[in-house]
Amino acid sequence: MTYTPVDYNPYDFANRRHIGPSPAEMEEMLKAVGVRTLDELIDQTVPASIRQAIPLGWAPLAEHELLARMREVASRNKVMTSLIGQGYYGTVTPPAIQRNILENPAWYTAYTPYQPEIAQGRLEALLNYQTMVCDLTGLDVANASLLDEATAAAEAMTMAERAAKSKARAFFVDENCHPQTIGVIRTRALPLGIEILTGAPETLEPEKVFGAIFQYPGTHGHVRDFTDLIDKLHAAKALAVVATDLLALCILKEPGAMGADIAVGSAQRFGVPMGYGGPHAAFMSCRDELKRSMPGRIVGVSIDARGNKAYRLSLQTREQHIRREKATSNVCTAQALLAVMASFYAVFHGPKGLRAIAERVHFLTNRLARALKAAGAKVEPKAFFDTITVEVGVGQAGIMAAARAEGLNFRKVGTAHVGISLDETTDERVLLRVLRAFGIDGVPPHRAQLGFPEALARTSEYLTHPVFHMNRAESEMMRYMRRLSDRDLALDRAMIPLGSCTMKLNAAAEMMPITWPEFGSLHPFAPADQALGYREAIEDLSSKLCEITGYDAFSMQPNSGAQGEYAGLLTILAYHRARGDDQRRICLIPMSAHGTNPASAQMAGMQVVPVKTAPNGDVDLDDFRARAEEAGDRLASCMITYPSTHGVFEETVREVCRITHEHGGQVYIDGANMNALVGLVKPGEIGGDVSHLNLHKTFAIPHGGGGPGMGPIGVRAHLAPHLPGHPQTGGAEGPVSAAPYGSASILLISWAYCLMMGGEGLTQATRVAILNANYIASRLAGHYPILFMGNKGRVAHECILDTRPFAEAGVTVDDIAKRLIDNGFHAPTMSWPVAGTLMVEPTESETKAEIDRFITALLAIRGEIRAVEVGDIAPEDSPLRHAPHTVEDLVADWTRKYPREQGCFPPGSFRVDKYWPPVGRVDNVWGDRNLVCTCPPVEAYARAAE
Amino acid sequence: MTYTPVDYNPYDFANRRHIGPSPAEMEEMLKAVGVRTLDELIDQTVPASIRQAIPLGWAPLAEHELLARMREVASRNKVMTSLIGQGYYGTVTPPAIQRNILENPAWYTAYTPYQPEIAQGRLEALLNYQTMVCDLTGLDVANASLLDEATAAAEAMTMAERAAKSKARAFFVDENCHPQTIGVIRTRALPLGIEILTGAPETLEPEKVFGAIFQYPGTHGHVRDFTDLIDKLHAAKALAVVATDLLALCILKEPGAMGADIAVGSAQRFGVPMGYGGPHAAFMSCRDELKRSMPGRIVGVSIDARGNKAYRLSLQTREQHIRREKATSNVCTAQALLAVMASFYAVFHGPKGLRAIAERVHFLTNRLARALKAAGAKVEPKAFFDTITVEVGVGQAGIMAAARAEGLNFRKVGTAHVGISLDETTDERVLLRVLRAFGIDGVPPHRAQLGFPEALARTSEYLTHPVFHMNRAESEMMRYMRRLSDRDLALDRAMIPLGSCTMKLNAAAEMMPITWPEFGSLHPFAPADQALGYREAIEDLSSKLCEITGYDAFSMQPNSGAQGEYAGLLTILAYHRARGDDQRRICLIPMSAHGTNPASAQMAGMQVVPVKTAPNGDVDLDDFRARAEEAGDRLASCMITYPSTHGVFEETVREVCRITHEHGGQVYIDGANMNALVGLVKPGEIGGDVSHLNLHKTFAIPHGGGGPGMGPIGVRAHLAPHLPGHPQTGGAEGPVSAAPYGSASILLISWAYCLMMGGEGLTQATRVAILNANYIASRLAGHYPILFMGNKGRVAHECILDTRPFAEAGVTVDDIAKRLIDNGFHAPTMSWPVAGTLMVEPTESETKAEIDRFITALLAIRGEIRAVEVGDIAPEDSPLRHAPHTVEDLVADWTRKYPREQGCFPPGSFRVDKYWPPVGRVDNVWGDRNLVCTCPPVEAYARAAE
Repeated sequence: MTYTPVDYNPYDFANRRHIGPSPAEMEEMLKAVGVRTLDELIDQTVPASIRQAIPLGWAPLAEHELLARMREVASRNKVMTSLIGQGYYGTVTPPAIQRNILENPAWYTAYTPYQPEIAQGRLEALLNYQTMVCDLTGLDVANASLLDEATAAAEAMTMAERAAKSKARAFFVDENCHPQTIGVIRTRALPLGIEILTGAPETLEPEKVFGAIFQYPGTHGHVRDFTDLIDKLHAAKALAVVATDLLALCILKEPGAMGADIAVGSAQRFGVPMGYGGPHAAFMSCRDELKRSMPGRIVGVSIDARGNKAYRLSLQTREQHIRREKATSNVCTAQALLAVMASFYAVFHGPKGLRAIAERVHFLTNRLARALKAAGAKVEPKAFFDTITVEVGVGQAGIMAAARAEGLNFRKVGTAHVGISLDETTDERVLLRVLRAFGIDGVPPHRAQLGFPEALARTSEYLTHPVFHMNRAESEMMRYMRRLSDRDLALDRAMIPLGSCTMKLNAAAEMMPITWPEFGSLHPFAPADQALGYREAIEDLSSKLCEITGYDAFSMQPNSGAQGEYAGLLTILAYHRARGDDQRRICLIPMSAHGTNPASAQMAGMQVVPVKTAPNGDVDLDDFRARAEEAGDRLASCMITYPSTHGVFEETVREVCRITHEHGGQVYIDGANMNALVGLVKPGEIGGDVSHLNLHKTFAIPHGGGGPGMGPIGVRAHLAPHLPGHPQTGGAEGPVSAAPYGSASILLISWAYCLMMGGEGLTQATRVAILNANYIASRLAGHYPILFMGNKGRVAHECILDTRPFAEAGVTVDDIAKRLIDNGFHAPTMSWPVAGTLMVEPTESETKAEIDRFITALLAIRGEIRAVEVGDIAPEDSPLRHAPHTVEDLVADWTRKYPREQGCFPPGSFRVDKYWPPVGRVDNVWGDRNLVCTCPPVEAYARAAE
Repeated sequence: MTYTPVDYNPYDFANRRHIGPSPAEMEEMLKAVGVRTLDELIDQTVPASIRQAIPLGWAPLAEHELLARMREVASRNKVMTSLIGQGYYGTVTPPAIQRNILENPAWYTAYTPYQPEIAQGRLEALLNYQTMVCDLTGLDVANASLLDEATAAAEAMTMAERAAKSKARAFFVDENCHPQTIGVIRTRALPLGIEILTGAPETLEPEKVFGAIFQYPGTHGHVRDFTDLIDKLHAAKALAVVATDLLALCILKEPGAMGADIAVGSAQRFGVPMGYGGPHAAFMSCRDELKRSMPGRIVGVSIDARGNKAYRLSLQTREQHIRREKATSNVCTAQALLAVMASFYAVFHGPKGLRAIAERVHFLTNRLARALKAAGAKVEPKAFFDTITVEVGVGQAGIMAAARAEGLNFRKVGTAHVGISLDETTDERVLLRVLRAFGIDGVPPHRAQLGFPEALARTSEYLTHPVFHMNRAESEMMRYMRRLSDRDLALDRAMIPLGSCTMKLNAAAEMMPITWPEFGSLHPFAPADQALGYREAIEDLSSKLCEITGYDAFSMQPNSGAQGEYAGLLTILAYHRARGDDQRRICLIPMSAHGTNPASAQMAGMQVVPVKTAPNGDVDLDDFRARAEEAGDRLASCMITYPSTHGVFEETVREVCRITHEHGGQVYIDGANMNALVGLVKPGEIGGDVSHLNLHKTFAIPHGGGGPGMGPIGVRAHLAPHLPGHPQTGGAEGPVSAAPYGSASILLISWAYCLMMGGEGLTQATRVAILNANYIASRLAGHYPILFMGNKGRVAHECILDTRPFAEAGVTVDDIAKRLIDNGFHAPTMSWPVAGTLMVEPTESETKAEIDRFITALLAIRGEIRAVEVGDIAPEDSPLRHAPHTVEDLVADWTRKYPREQGCFPPGSFRVDKYWPPVGRVDNVWGDRNLVCTCPPVEAYARAAE
């Protein structure tokens, strides 16, 4: 007898942990789909003509091997005390927030709160964020975060252009803005034909511009009152934007009080680690009259079916996915998770705490300035908050080196100055080190003395709402965070079958490194030799993404998918421009495209030419050919999604690319659906010239309740020289984001994912994603019409259920979506890409059991629809219309035409572990009609505790 | 005009984060209590005669300063690859378990599951643990964890003594047991008069013993079949205990199959970091006939009021708090959190994964042995699992040094051998390093070859229950963990006002360092120079605890409060013995003492003499004096709790100590109520000679759902030489725990707490704990009789509500406790120290709002009691009796005599954020009558998903 060892690898992350169905489950699923093997299904689904020849190469790491590797890489980053400032500051993340938000899957795996009934927790946290921004900036309405300060400033410019009554075509940019802000504004202005004027604020000629942006405090520390300049702008019918700093506003006069129309900035220093550039939440606020021009998501207050207070996203009709060619911004991702953190930071500290922190930073800066001046140094500016600039002449290199020897990074300013920005983490010991770098011993004593004129001191109150005056004991804070997260449904409780959003597993091992200080505490402009760990991670991730996509180079700068599209199109335009093909501005976009496509093309200054969709959902090849010919040498690009937004692998993709190239255009392949391609098809091989990858869809970055995201772009070699540059790192082109590598710290998540999956695992994930979708399609076919199959009757990684046939009976797609909440599911994508449909994407991470639970739910719903169709129950009496059901429904008298049991525990729902939505169906119309976008008054809160 | 800075320190952890009531809230509370200042209240509460003169000295750290300090200290620990074995092994904690259990307050802040309705999640996890232990050891019943392997072995010995029919008074200990196991057994045996015989298993003379313990695999690796020896033991009516290893049992014949009666061991290597000694869960299982003799907590299956399956703690009548002087074990704390982790490790890997891991470790060990033998080394034993011993002669020091140079720790065995234990983290690279230390290059190829006879290979199945065959995708695992935690109510959702248990805040900053590898990966027997960080932490914590208690020395070894009591009494006995006072064995214990007191005294071989309690709850001084005189020179000790278990600062405490000392006794002051003393009173100054501190009560270690705990003991100088020793670190006395510093890694939590609070903060915490308790007493007086006030009408840090007056009307203390669940509260301590009462301890961490919510709930309950009293409703019809209410009650037809609204949303409960218990009132009698202590069959699970 010989011992037979078990054939099983418990450390196989790809197949045991990440991919949902077990081998045995897959067998059953293949049977249901009607194929013998997974290979057979893939062959029926993915056209042979486009399949990659060589499989992805690298071997996988186990979870503990990954963490060991990450620790090694982390140790190559050198954490110094960065006093560089320039938009990024040291901050203390309260441990309670780190543990209960940033390290908590209930928060980080949530989706964008489009379904308000299951998102009341994060909507409340985001409303707190908006209230905080409004209060601190002194303006009326704020959105729930933008990508970074620089893009927020660029968005403010285009918003000013839309809203200003001035007919001027120029925009003034204060030279005191951060260099990256100026860079991104320039990038954005160029294709839109906006002229950028820069200079000292005094040089502004109001009648020449439709708006101006001032930085307050300025990048080199200057603090001044812009009231006069703003008055002049207003007189010229132009608008004033102030880029500002939330911490400074805790003691400085607020932009609203100076008359500013729009304020922008970053909430990073409210408890969000620098992370070598991000992610952080940027903010934007404006006067009430301008709110309908404001980009981004705005949380508002509405009521539910019982008339109880309920939060929701307001003014959604402004969003790009609805406005398409008319879109004025492609903003799609927010920085929800980081905005939530910043809002909790404000709740955690309250106005008194924030003011104390601001004063602490300011008085320390003042001590530093006093000490330097006493030693004879020339220190600027006269009025400052946390940043000073010291004239050091030819001693610049010496001082920079002395600082480094003290473990400090100063900012190199010109050739004869250094900049020093203090922050929340600065204490007297740091001050001593700073002064030692200047050869000064000791620090002067603390004095509560302002470093700016008293007239500039803030006199108005802020954060007066009770939420900022909660008892700030950690028990109370922890419970508040828990209560909010319990109101929400995220991946840690159920599948989120959102078509096109790829809500796959965000593994704990992938998430752990991002909160290590070696990754979190790095300033994006720290010297390169302090970021060798990041360099290794970024280079290795780039090379893997190149292998996956078939491209030759990657830019990690775009920090959202839409940003990636935009950057990709700019790259194409720069390429044409370099070849003297300035006239190439036409971009062909199929009508079925995601709304960000035309919006991004619009922003890139392209002329969008829509291409028809054939009845089977494919690009109409004849129309495409005709439009391309029409464009001729004005053709810049086409933008296609592959597989299509209808979830089909179009056989004609190579032909589309060929036609485009034939007319001198470049092919942009939107990477939104890369989860159906990785390991099987390389966009760079089938004709693509550029693609962005949604790392938050395909590469395991969590959605964070609506951001962060990352949208790096891959390009073929000929486009590589035209990728985005950055003032900090160089490059021929302008920047698209504030930081050179976008939200660098979350690149680690995608890298970890690639390392643990290995090439084979990634490929298998793609195959199983296709299996899961086809399993759902097979099981539901005959109950719901499945739209858009490939020519072998297969869908790709998602499938579209047509619910339009039920409209006649009075059942809407909304009814189905809300009824799924009763089953404990987030609804699939509604009415996109086709109105009246549900697009379902299970991803590879869902197990058969969870998918079966979902199918059970949908089949039961179909039964309820049938009851309406045959007249057994009126649609308005049906559980479909009353969905979602809440505990309030159970407690109240029951007058429904169906039993409580049916209402609350439909097939597929959990019994003991049921998720109860905190509100009933939310009234959207009421909310937009009665727009309230800051925290509602106290009594609404009091009620909760009754 | 001059700028006035805000007077506020946002980094004041003690007053802003840890202590619940804000200064303004405290004002209101003092008013309600009827005093002007907190000083006044403290003066009325704590007798002036015992107050300490000098305040605690050290300054506090902010949270971020603490974490910086911790990182610095962590860096002084050197993480090597420890192949020492001896009961502690490297293990891979699955990141999903680390993040979702160990770093999740929903799990770690929970209390012991005495209230089953709010503890179904952890009860299920613990039932999984029991099932896993039963299956792997091949025995019928297991408990839900003991403190460590060594104490489990000692418990097995006393259990064997109770259960064996043999009348022999000796116990045989296999010399192959770990040295610390032998040490603890000896310590335990001595005071009980049990003779310990040690030797090779072959030397066992069955008729001379009531039982024997064998280690399998042995400490030096030996694997052998004990069937014959066990048969012989049984023939002599003696019992067989096998100390074993769960991982080995995945491929080795199980002890049950050898006929063993009891199995013990550690579940550490199932995913729980070594942590320099702990905490880890030890296990014990036994044959069905012995279950009623088994110590520790046993989870069982019962039904709730609707007849649905519900888990609960079974056989609670065996517990020490009920049996008191008759107790046979003082086991009180389990290692619940670690048992939960280990059980999830088994769920995560399943039987196939565990077997694969065991095989991997074993085949690697076999490769190592082959390589060594091939190079001519003498390797023992012939049959092994993961541990081998190599004869190195005079080369021992050289090999040990060579290993260290390779980053490895071997075990020094005698003077001429080294031991090497491989583990889950060992890979080929480690093997190469091991061989290099022996001067051997390269490793032999993998072969699936057993290093023990096939006859010893396991043939039976294990972990056949469906819970171990779930799909093991991380999404599924994460959701299972979330579902279980959602069923429970822990500190992250509500106050847990448990008298005597001090459920204070466990701050995130305190918890973070324990999962850093520099603290987690250290072997308890690693060379001292690799643990300098731990040394610093332990020394500084000791010195602070000395300052707090007024003692001169501390032993960190006891890893629970009861263990501390026991160790303290042994220290006293050793002191008497050293002075030739062997006859001093009497221990005076007031009748009001915690049940562990007499149980510990019993175990220490003392004769317990109970002392009467005066009507006011104090020790009856006359009776005490009389008992002490009676004891005379046989008086060893008295054990008192201060303030008393009735929550009163007895004025007579000094007198009690004086009397004890007068008769040559030593005073043991139980530290259970230290939360009323820290900074105000030092037990060492008022007459105490020894005290244990419950670090998990007073010093912020979380309760973990029933453990871990830590019970270090402080002593005055004359007792210091008699503190517990340890085979590894020396000392005159024997060890009481497996590891020299007990559960060393969680000492960091208490240290962090002391560092952030500062001396002043700790003192203020005590004062506010007293305020909070008196506020509750003041608000509830007139509604509920408050028992046992001090002579100025004040309670200490807890207060006792008398519910006996309601018994006449038919309302029980249980009714009130369960009704509080409807309000979202864990019940106070029930019927202890007085039957028919509720003991409430709010701790300093609860805010006024949360306390008010609790008071609101209790006042509403009083109203419901009154309705019964005046005959408005019969007790059996009242919401009190039907509590807790579940969603099932709402869905079902409502036939109650009160409205749904009253049943489910009593005053004080949350509305939107209400906690719904997963089961109704659990039937305890049914459960004990129908004892099921492993996972129930499938259909029970299937139902959950219906």
